[in-house]
Amino acid sequence: MIHQEAPADGDAPRSSAAATDLVLALQGAMGDDCVSIDPTDLARYETGWRYGHGKARLVVKPRTTEHVAAAVRICRDAGVRIQPVGANTGLVAASTPDESGEMVVLSLERLSRIVSVDHGNGSATVEGGVLLSQLNGALADDGRVFPIDLGADPQIGGMIATNTGGSRLVRYGDVRANLLGVEVVLPTGEIWSDLKGLRKNNTGLDAKQLFVGTSGAFGIVTGAVLKTWPLPKQRTGALACATSGEAVLSLLARLEPALGEFLTAFEAISATAVSAVLKHGAIDRSPYDGAPPAYSVLIELSSAVPSETLDLEELLGAALMEHMEAAEGDVDDVVVGDVKDFWHVRHQVSECLREEGTVLGLDVSVPRSSMAAFTSDVRTRLAESHPFVSVADFGHWGDGGSHLNLVWDPAAAPEGTKRALQREIYGLCVKTYGGSYSAEHGVGPHNIDAYHEYTSAYVREVCAKVAPERFGTVDL
Amino acid sequence: MIHQEAPADGDAPRSSAAATDLVLALQGAMGDDCVSIDPTDLARYETGWRYGHGKARLVVKPRTTEHVAAAVRICRDAGVRIQPVGANTGLVAASTPDESGEMVVLSLERLSRIVSVDHGNGSATVEGGVLLSQLNGALADDGRVFPIDLGADPQIGGMIATNTGGSRLVRYGDVRANLLGVEVVLPTGEIWSDLKGLRKNNTGLDAKQLFVGTSGAFGIVTGAVLKTWPLPKQRTGALACATSGEAVLSLLARLEPALGEFLTAFEAISATAVSAVLKHGAIDRSPYDGAPPAYSVLIELSSAVPSETLDLEELLGAALMEHMEAAEGDVDDVVVGDVKDFWHVRHQVSECLREEGTVLGLDVSVPRSSMAAFTSDVRTRLAESHPFVSVADFGHWGDGGSHLNLVWDPAAAPEGTKRALQREIYGLCVKTYGGSYSAEHGVGPHNIDAYHEYTSAYVREVCAKVAPERFGTVDL
Repeated sequence: MIHQEAPADGDAPRSSAAATDLVLALQGAMGDDCVSIDPTDLARYETGWRYGHGKARLVVKPRTTEHVAAAVRICRDAGVRIQPVGANTGLVAASTPDESGEMVVLSLERLSRIVSVDHGNGSATVEGGVLLSQLNGALADDGRVFPIDLGADPQIGGMIATNTGGSRLVRYGDVRANLLGVEVVLPTGEIWSDLKGLRKNNTGLDAKQLFVGTSGAFGIVTGAVLKTWPLPKQRTGALACATSGEAVLSLLARLEPALGEFLTAFEAISATAVSAVLKHGAIDRSPYDGAPPAYSVLIELSSAVPSETLDLEELLGAALMEHMEAAEGDVDDVVVGDVKDFWHVRHQVSECLREEGTVLGLDVSVPRSSMAAFTSDVRTRLAESHPFVSVADFGHWGDGGSHLNLVWDPAAAPEGTKRALQREIYGLCVKTYGGSYSAEHGVGPHNIDAYHEYTSAYVREVCAKVAPERFGTVDL
Repeated sequence: MIHQEAPADGDAPRSSAAATDLVLALQGAMGDDCVSIDPTDLARYETGWRYGHGKARLVVKPRTTEHVAAAVRICRDAGVRIQPVGANTGLVAASTPDESGEMVVLSLERLSRIVSVDHGNGSATVEGGVLLSQLNGALADDGRVFPIDLGADPQIGGMIATNTGGSRLVRYGDVRANLLGVEVVLPTGEIWSDLKGLRKNNTGLDAKQLFVGTSGAFGIVTGAVLKTWPLPKQRTGALACATSGEAVLSLLARLEPALGEFLTAFEAISATAVSAVLKHGAIDRSPYDGAPPAYSVLIELSSAVPSETLDLEELLGAALMEHMEAAEGDVDDVVVGDVKDFWHVRHQVSECLREEGTVLGLDVSVPRSSMAAFTSDVRTRLAESHPFVSVADFGHWGDGGSHLNLVWDPAAAPEGTKRALQREIYGLCVKTYGGSYSAEHGVGPHNIDAYHEYTSAYVREVCAKVAPERFGTVDL
């Protein structure tokens, strides 16, 4: 598509005749109140949650899928690119416009209807702009849940575009595993609707997969059919103190066969990450007697069976006791029961690390059996190559995902440190450990260099053929 | 690719100079013993398990992925089409060559190595020709399983090409949900390898999805990384007699929230299907006191926790008792415990129906909440349009999949009955109930007409762009 260069002074031509024509055409298609050029309104869409900042020409807030299709056609005819945005909670800068001031932001926030809930089928049909919290609110009364669990409140369309994983993937899978149907608006302005609520459907290419985890580039997700699950009747947890990464893995290897279907989360947080929270966080009291251990392991169990039938707390306690005896000191303290205090620590890590200096957040994964070797290797290498950097990792050890946060004093670091570190860690992860440079945050400007470096020619070719036109700034 | 017409007498040019050149080239690339033109050997590949019959020019049995790639390049250069075949257990005729006698059958049977098993990661890397039974044999010693359960012993590559579902999808998902990585040989002869063992990996288009459920048309699956699960420590079941399809659904609606993560299978078999087994099958004694009920419901529970910790049999018995009280006669008899006898009945249905007349086996799905309405609608309509047909359905009510077997006395049926019935049922399923004409058997010559009728222009376009060249006879 045609991409007009921004004027040299960087100011967007918001008041030019062409821009006015575009506004009028969009207003004509969907109503005056669906189009905004108000700078304070635009500002909401110009900065991402963690990374990403740009400048929008205008924002459209369609109320229906037909509105979205109309907006896409109008912008396409005008040679104007569209940046779709959900709740703007992504972490790779994929939901903000570029700096040109030429892009139209298309926000899904008004496509926020829960179209239908089919309890017998265990499914819900929703518009793309429905919030995760909104959906789960509507399902809770009937004892059901859409079980993807994460520290933000994204829209369903955005969750599909990033294939959100989260803390409970070990039990429920990712968005892909819970997606029965989609409706999208293609870059051509056509609507492709495949809103079937089927658990089994094998009729050739499952084309909805094209829109899962592809940052909205190939289509704007305007609707979805999602699988729902019975809401657990009990939930319990434990905090175990592990003396090393190897001890975390050995705990997982023992607990998984013993706790099987109840295991809902298995997370580990490094001492460096925990210490930042103890120092800067909103904490009443430390959950530890002394210094935090190498890894604090958070284990969550849940069940559809009530505790009178099966006491999960007892089950977990017994499994941990058995492991501690066998582990001979590798796991040296355990708290079973209400671990709310500790989740509270866990959720403050990202924020508190920012108090410690410049933070580079990397969302990587390796085969989970390599988590200990990988994170230890990262520490050893960085101690050599970047001695001023501290590694504050935490993550989903049950599924091999690690949020590797690298922290440093900006005064001590040479220019280009961020990019050099990113490149070094991604390389180690992908090339040495068969891992991924983006476990669950998807692809955006934040990590697009790695995409270019590690994506096979075959996949690039397929993308070019399937979607010669694109939405957004992400060059897949 | 060039497709030579078969000689008018239907005899393949096996002994022509061109054919000899092809044999020599293939033998040169992978060894003499990897190529066969022996008619008795070829016969094994010329007839499908249920549907499909053709004629092969020759069969190649490569030992490595490089062999497969070489064979593909040689055949491509010679303008000869390839039919890949796994264990030939598919049910839509997608694994047999056409009638031309021109196609080369490429059998994966010698790519049968279990490359590695990573217990810590919960994954296994296998070649495409590994049998399901072989993989599970290798995993069992370490207490793990690849949990896709079905009534045949397919190869892993074929399971990916059909996205096998089976009886335990309600617990473990389908092959797609358990596939971490693939290696394929593309129709161009290139190898695309993405054998990562990652649970979280979101780096743009997940291109392996192109090869899941697409009948091998877009690529021959030569390798895969599969997710493994802890082997259950106990398994129990029940047989419940339901007076109607609605009663089956109400049972499911009550049991799912109560039994949650333990529910491993939820199947129902119609009286017509059961009666055929009681009449023709290898049955010591009927599992029923009187006539079989409208639907016999088979419920299976399993757990990683041993029965000393949680008695699943007791749990299931209590849940069923509670339901029977609430259901007021809709479910009027229940056996809990060892339901081996009944699985034995279940597994003989297809075979015994054949004793009753001509059988048309349709593998359809609808939202599971519509299973009762759909199957009842089928009965009502066929009683009108095809009074000589009996409906012997059985299937996976827990996931909305129904094996609709239609049986009739061939003497009573006009020509074209099979095709007319297929069209009527597929139409009802897809258009009235938002269902699928192929729940879990994939697409092949058996149901390709429905593919042409119900596949959207968008999906056809994507397929044409992604894979302008194809393997096999299936025109996706």
